[in-house]
Amino acid sequence: MGFQKVWATGSRNCIICCFLCLTLFSRIETTGLVDAVTERQAEESHRQDSTKVLVFTLLLTLTILTIWLFKHRRFRFLHETGLAMIYGLLVGVILRFGVHVQPDVSNSTLTCVGKSRPSSLLLNVSGHLYEYELRGEVDSRSSDNLPSVDMLRKATFDPEVFFNILLPPIIFHAGYSLKRRHFFRNLGAILTYAFVGTVISSFVIGLVMYGCVALMNAIGQLDGDFFFTDCLFFGAIISATDPVTVLAIFSELKVDVDLYALMFGESVLNDAVAIVLSSSVVAYQPSGESSQALDGRAMLTSLGVFLAVLSGSFVLGSAAGVLTALVTKFTRLRDFPLLETALFFLMSWSTFLLAEACSITGVVAVLFCGITQAHYTYNNLSAESKSRTKELFELLNFLAENFIFSYMGLTLFSFQKHVFNPVFITGAFLAIFLGRAANIYPLSFLLNLGRTNAISLNFQHVMMFAGLRGAMTFALSIRDTATYARQMMFSSTLLIVFFTVWVFGGGTTPMLSFLKIRVGVEEEQESSVPGSEETVGTVGRRDTAWLFRLWYTFDHKYVKPLLTHSGPPLITTLPACCAPVAHCLTSSQTYEQQDSDSELILNHSPSMLYSDLSVSADAVFDPSSSVQDQPLLQGPTHSVLSTEESPIVPGPVPLPPHSSPLSEPLRLRL
Amino acid sequence: MGFQKVWATGSRNCIICCFLCLTLFSRIETTGLVDAVTERQAEESHRQDSTKVLVFTLLLTLTILTIWLFKHRRFRFLHETGLAMIYGLLVGVILRFGVHVQPDVSNSTLTCVGKSRPSSLLLNVSGHLYEYELRGEVDSRSSDNLPSVDMLRKATFDPEVFFNILLPPIIFHAGYSLKRRHFFRNLGAILTYAFVGTVISSFVIGLVMYGCVALMNAIGQLDGDFFFTDCLFFGAIISATDPVTVLAIFSELKVDVDLYALMFGESVLNDAVAIVLSSSVVAYQPSGESSQALDGRAMLTSLGVFLAVLSGSFVLGSAAGVLTALVTKFTRLRDFPLLETALFFLMSWSTFLLAEACSITGVVAVLFCGITQAHYTYNNLSAESKSRTKELFELLNFLAENFIFSYMGLTLFSFQKHVFNPVFITGAFLAIFLGRAANIYPLSFLLNLGRTNAISLNFQHVMMFAGLRGAMTFALSIRDTATYARQMMFSSTLLIVFFTVWVFGGGTTPMLSFLKIRVGVEEEQESSVPGSEETVGTVGRRDTAWLFRLWYTFDHKYVKPLLTHSGPPLITTLPACCAPVAHCLTSSQTYEQQDSDSELILNHSPSMLYSDLSVSADAVFDPSSSVQDQPLLQGPTHSVLSTEESPIVPGPVPLPPHSSPLSEPLRLRL
Repeated sequence: MGFQKVWATGSRNCIICCFLCLTLFSRIETTGLVDAVTERQAEESHRQDSTKVLVFTLLLTLTILTIWLFKHRRFRFLHETGLAMIYGLLVGVILRFGVHVQPDVSNSTLTCVGKSRPSSLLLNVSGHLYEYELRGEVDSRSSDNLPSVDMLRKATFDPEVFFNILLPPIIFHAGYSLKRRHFFRNLGAILTYAFVGTVISSFVIGLVMYGCVALMNAIGQLDGDFFFTDCLFFGAIISATDPVTVLAIFSELKVDVDLYALMFGESVLNDAVAIVLSSSVVAYQPSGESSQALDGRAMLTSLGVFLAVLSGSFVLGSAAGVLTALVTKFTRLRDFPLLETALFFLMSWSTFLLAEACSITGVVAVLFCGITQAHYTYNNLSAESKSRTKELFELLNFLAENFIFSYMGLTLFSFQKHVFNPVFITGAFLAIFLGRAANIYPLSFLLNLGRTNAISLNFQHVMMFAGLRGAMTFALSIRDTATYARQMMFSSTLLIVFFTVWVFGGGTTPMLSFLKIRVGVEEEQESSVPGSEETVGTVGRRDTAWLFRLWYTFDHKYVKPLLTHSGPPLITTLPACCAPVAHCLTSSQTYEQQDSDSELILNHSPSMLYSDLSVSADAVFDPSSSVQDQPLLQGPTHSVLSTEESPIVPGPVPLPPHSSPLSEPLRLRL
Repeated sequence: MGFQKVWATGSRNCIICCFLCLTLFSRIETTGLVDAVTERQAEESHRQDSTKVLVFTLLLTLTILTIWLFKHRRFRFLHETGLAMIYGLLVGVILRFGVHVQPDVSNSTLTCVGKSRPSSLLLNVSGHLYEYELRGEVDSRSSDNLPSVDMLRKATFDPEVFFNILLPPIIFHAGYSLKRRHFFRNLGAILTYAFVGTVISSFVIGLVMYGCVALMNAIGQLDGDFFFTDCLFFGAIISATDPVTVLAIFSELKVDVDLYALMFGESVLNDAVAIVLSSSVVAYQPSGESSQALDGRAMLTSLGVFLAVLSGSFVLGSAAGVLTALVTKFTRLRDFPLLETALFFLMSWSTFLLAEACSITGVVAVLFCGITQAHYTYNNLSAESKSRTKELFELLNFLAENFIFSYMGLTLFSFQKHVFNPVFITGAFLAIFLGRAANIYPLSFLLNLGRTNAISLNFQHVMMFAGLRGAMTFALSIRDTATYARQMMFSSTLLIVFFTVWVFGGGTTPMLSFLKIRVGVEEEQESSVPGSEETVGTVGRRDTAWLFRLWYTFDHKYVKPLLTHSGPPLITTLPACCAPVAHCLTSSQTYEQQDSDSELILNHSPSMLYSDLSVSADAVFDPSSSVQDQPLLQGPTHSVLSTEESPIVPGPVPLPPHSSPLSEPLRLRL
């Protein structure tokens, strides 16, 4: 096994140590140097590291300035992530070809001979014992060229950093800023694409790649082992679409909200699916050397792992969110926004740590924690904490994201073991195309059988086109680059990410106008901050089943009042026998809010609902016309949304859905 | 040399990698484990680490909840930092006495014999080369007890973490939130206390400790070397007072603003002095084994290092602040608060990295960077970025601070090499008392000779009493615990910090009321955010010299207009020949603001100034009366401060200073 693998598994411990870490590409070193001379060396090394980190910080600064310039000039063909990659590429080129390190002679190594390979080693120098730690296997070919290898190794930092430091804030932010209104409205479709679709896509890609590998084998292009499980693993990691680039463009162009919700929901959830799926494949793999064969029991094990990890993460993340909600409800912590924000941050982070401590996936748990925090805890926060938490995670997300994309660019040149194989790369591009198509088109067809507002063919084309691969795919593929197969996958993945981000990302705007997708839609509720959900109940009537409506009623009547200050007081919803308990659990604030809330909440079932209005108006418009329909769409909503908890329109809405005074052609979708 | 020292110098590189790092006490390990078995071990170890970090996160959460409870119940005798220490102590006790680790047999070590001690070592196992890294010297006595040592070592994390991760945000926040109005008003006194006073205090403490060590030597209590330079080093590290605890109480009680400014300014700047002074002592020390003797040339070297590092950090920090100001001024980045905040964060962090890369003190550079950012850059930020940056650094500061204090508590039990010597500890307590007295009283006497508003004796008593030792002292003392002398210093420092934080910190409120210090003073300008300076010019007339007034005029006329959107346009201040340049450098916003600003700025020189008014009213009040004088004090200011850049009151102030309609006794200070 190669060096990278060792590194990946071994130095996990150090990663969990850090949190926001932009500078991790300076390789972690615990070299203890004892003498004054060696201490000076350590200082020198510290200085060099600072310089490298500084260069990277300045790179990010440069990226920010260029992003600003692009935004300022409304230049949409290259997104900030694409830009960050380009800068990363440039630095990679410089590191690779521009910097020459002279060999450090003083740092000569001593070679011991041993029979085993323990994790620590004691060196006895005239009575003094020195402890050495295993760092990894050294390629004996490159051992004569150690300094330059070391330099590049410093620039390629531990892959686990992505999982433990950079991804959690990104994923938490995705959950926390989820526009739950539209998310829940399209929940059925989103779950189908994210779960069924991603699994289909993984298998299609796996099969195509297996064919491709067989072809390579036949024409003698394969220089190492490539098992079927490797193909499936590739399918799992490459199936996760990235929300960043496309959605940034979508939200800038104010594209149709349902399309936005579908893309966003799918790409957030399929990250979770990809993580769990790929780790299931790995768990299924190492049952011996002949693990390439498929057998039923192992498949079942994989499925079991998949379901257990997913549901475990879901339960854990939600539980943490619920706990935070309870804490923020029953203390008056909201009087001290700083404490509140710190608590929120620490408890969300604890979720990640707890999941890692329980050996389930922290990143997935953090996603569900973010959704729960947004649904419940957010309502209990003070106004200041609401904006503070939102802004904090926005910033962390921004920095982490741009760091990942610059680092991707850097890796193309600084990574040591690229295996670029034209056949494999061509096969991979074909495979992701087929996999994406096998996800979107058949499932959309099936979904449209049950949907009132069908997913139009143009929407499907956009979803097909906008399936970019990004941070998650990269993080999963760099996690293990020990074998030949994984190295080839990693190199191909990098190219796929570059291609999709630059070409598909850049082509989104033309594509949207070509497909006549409605843009310039003012969201019915602009607050991308959480805290504006609740239309869930109305959704139940259309897309989703009675089960979902049941949950909504339960949530609205019992869970929300229990966990937050909003909703009807428990006293009114619980049976009379529970009155004392209900009294205990109802905060004084709930009573205070009751007056203002009741009129909005109590009469919502018989009335004309806002979401109906907006959905039925959900048609193809000329962008220029969208300005005109804003007063109609926004009027009632805005007045309602000014209260904290009331996206449901009070009483009968003044206008029935189709009597809108729009002069534009209002073509309803299928 | 001991293990701790090795560790401190060697693993610097890894620290710079992380930024906000609450979890660093899980020892960084790069142990590479290769086999499936060892991989499982690595996963196990990762899980254990996550659990430990989780425990620590929950500890902080608990601290936050208790802090809230204390604030809620207005319980002021134990500050949050004291509380964090108590929780840390508890965890330390549990770790020390409650947790038993069974020895991990599988992780057996191989012992090699060698002649030298290289930084890396290659192990040849049947043709495969494995690289090992030096981790440090192992105490041969404890090597039979490795697992439990390892467990405690995991809980004691790398001291450099304080300097590279935890202190920078704290110090930056201190600079960024400095109330420059009062700071500049008392600049002369603050600089005297912080620079002259800290040096005096260091020497007094050093001398007293030298006597104490001589006594210990005489009565046979000294078990190792303790040189005079060690005594000086102790003086340097223990002289830095901590702003956290006392100032939190001061600001809660709204204590007299001048007293607040004196204490805050002194404790912020003497951190810088202590860092530089202690590193100067170290730089002066290792000139051989007989380094205990004082010689003139070495003293001069130390002084040179001291001045060079201090001025270097000052120049670098200010330059970075100025650069950020220019960038934020000449781009319209303020349209995108997220980008702006990210840029601000990255550039401030770059200052730290740049200083480290130049081998000067990053922490000190960051302090001056913070002050410059607040003075210039802050004015260019959008309203949203202003609150974002403020809140972000407030949060980082809060988390870092509480982490340091809990960690201090933890260290008392988890640190391996405590040397508690009753004589030394008694001597140290005496020394810090004498050192503080030698700083405050003589310097106050000298200062009062030149000050119009003298520093009253009661103020001096408070400053004497409130000289707590905190994070900086701890960080400096844990940085190097290799020798016997340093270990004894560290143990004594811990006790001093505990004692001062709990006793002096808790006693602040009674002390204030005993000394009849005015509390409940509404600040003339409540905004603890930066961006409300400018009364500097008015200060020039009283305390500070013509040199300072010159600088103020220069700053107001040229620097501010150049770097920010505020102040008079450069066109009006620069000579006519520079008109084209001035035109280039003046932003359109400056012209826009000109209308609203001009009336406030242009006629300030002949008028009655607001700061005069407030200073002359600066007397001892009954707290209950302070409400009455608010309308008088706040009236004109608030109307003025609503514009971004105008703390100077327009025109003649309605009331002359002494005709205030206050019925309370208004005793002017000496």
